[in-house]
Amino acid sequence: MAKEKPLILVCNDDGITAPGIRTLVEVMNELGEVVVVAPDGPQSGMGHAITIDGILRCDPIHITEGPQKEYSCSGTPVDCVKLAVNVVLDRKPDLVVSGINHGSNSSINVIYSGTMSAAVEGSLEGIPSIGFSLCDFSWEANFSEAKPFIKTLARKVLQEGLPHGICLNVNIPKHTGQPYKGIKICRQARANWEEEFDSRKDPRKRNYYWLTGTFKNYDGGEDTDEWALENYYISVVPINSDFTAHELSQTLNAWKL
Amino acid sequence: MAKEKPLILVCNDDGITAPGIRTLVEVMNELGEVVVVAPDGPQSGMGHAITIDGILRCDPIHITEGPQKEYSCSGTPVDCVKLAVNVVLDRKPDLVVSGINHGSNSSINVIYSGTMSAAVEGSLEGIPSIGFSLCDFSWEANFSEAKPFIKTLARKVLQEGLPHGICLNVNIPKHTGQPYKGIKICRQARANWEEEFDSRKDPRKRNYYWLTGTFKNYDGGEDTDEWALENYYISVVPINSDFTAHELSQTLNAWKL
Repeated sequence: MAKEKPLILVCNDDGITAPGIRTLVEVMNELGEVVVVAPDGPQSGMGHAITIDGILRCDPIHITEGPQKEYSCSGTPVDCVKLAVNVVLDRKPDLVVSGINHGSNSSINVIYSGTMSAAVEGSLEGIPSIGFSLCDFSWEANFSEAKPFIKTLARKVLQEGLPHGICLNVNIPKHTGQPYKGIKICRQARANWEEEFDSRKDPRKRNYYWLTGTFKNYDGGEDTDEWALENYYISVVPINSDFTAHELSQTLNAWKL
Repeated sequence: MAKEKPLILVCNDDGITAPGIRTLVEVMNELGEVVVVAPDGPQSGMGHAITIDGILRCDPIHITEGPQKEYSCSGTPVDCVKLAVNVVLDRKPDLVVSGINHGSNSSINVIYSGTMSAAVEGSLEGIPSIGFSLCDFSWEANFSEAKPFIKTLARKVLQEGLPHGICLNVNIPKHTGQPYKGIKICRQARANWEEEFDSRKDPRKRNYYWLTGTFKNYDGGEDTDEWALENYYISVVPINSDFTAHELSQTLNAWKL
C-alpha cells in the first residue's frame, strides 16, 4: 500500500487571496495533500495575537483552481492554526507553512509578524513549521524564482522534522533578475524599528496618529539574516519559543532578591 | 542639586481602569515620576500586535487620584509603549512596567500576552522593563500582598539596569492568606494550551467558534516558573527578544541546503 501523502497546512497573514499564499499553495500541491486555513483579510503586524473576547468564523471557500481544500477564517493567523488543527483537520498535519509574506520578516520583524506567529504556533502544536517571506511588498512581486528553494526546504523539513517548539524563519531577497546565490543558516540580527508617528488632526480637530518607522540594523555580523539578505542569499533562522534568557540567570541570582 | 526622579512608564493589557494597573501606579508613585499610557479597553491575548492598517488615538485622561499623568490609547499594549516613547514623553523613561495582569503570564503564556509584549517592546527600545502578573483572574483579586515584592524588583532594576532586548517576566501566585515564600529566578516551563473550540450556531444557522482550552505543563523541572508558582514563590524569568534557536544551527547546516 502506498504511503499516505503528507498533510500540509497553509496559512499566512496577508489574507487568503494574496499572491504570496497562492504561490505557496502551488508549490505545496506538488508535495502533499494541502489544506489552507487563512485569514479572510489582512492581518499583518498581528504578532501572536489570539481572539479571546470575540467569536471566530471559519468557512470553506474556493479561491483558485487546484486539489487543495480552503477555509477562510475571521481571526488572526494564530487563530487559523488553532482552528485548523482542532476543528478543520481530521488528522495532525505533517507540516505547517505560512506565507509567502509580502515583505521581510527578518531580524526583529519576526516578533511583529502574523506570518511567523502562525509558524511558531504550529511548532507549539508539535508540527514541523516554516514561515516564508519575500522582501518585496509589491502585490506584483516575483515569487516564481523562490519556488524551487521553498520546495527544497519544505521537502527537507518533511523528511527530517524539527524539534518541538522550534520553527524556521525563511526570508527571500527581492528578485533582481539574477539567480539567488543559495540558502544560508543564520541568526536573527540585532535590529529594531525607530518609530516616527505621523500626527494628524481629524475633521473634528482631534489628534490621531499613524505608526511609521525606519528599520535600523545595529548588527555588523556576517552570520545574520540581514547580512545574508543584503548579499542575495535566502536566510534561514531557527526560531525558539522558549524565550528564557538563560545567560542572565546568574546575574539575577546574584541580586539576592 | 538633587538627582532627577526616575521616569517610569506604566502600561498593561487589561485596560487603563483595571484594578491591576491601579495597584501598579500606586507602587510606582513611591519610586519615581509616573506616566501611564495604557489601552482604553481590554487587549488581552494581543501578543506583540501593532496597529498598521488603522489610526491610533492617545489622549490625556484622569482615572484615580495621584501625581501620575495618564493617557488612554486606542491601540495595543505595544502601540502604547511606542506612542509613549515617541509622542507622549519628552525624555526616555528609566523603567517600563506593565501589569499587574489579571491572570498568569507564566510559561508559554508569555507569547500571547499583551502585558508581556509591552515589556518586551520596552526592552527593544533599550529601556529596562518588567511585566507583572497575578495568577488570579478575579477583578477583586488581592494585589496588596504583592506590592512589597513589586517595589523591590522595580527598585533593583532601576539600580542595576537590564541588557538591551531582555526584560523580566514576573508572576505572582494567587494570594491564599499566607505570606509569599519569596522570589525565585526561573526558566520558562515547557507547556502549551490544548485548545477546545466551543462550536455554536448563530441565529441564522451559521457556524461560529469560541476559543477555549486547557493549560498543559509538560515540564517536571524544579527550576521552572510553573514549579515556583505551584510552590507559592514569585517567579522571575528573564525574557529574550533574540529568538534564534542557536542549538539547531549545526543540524541545519548539516542538511547542506
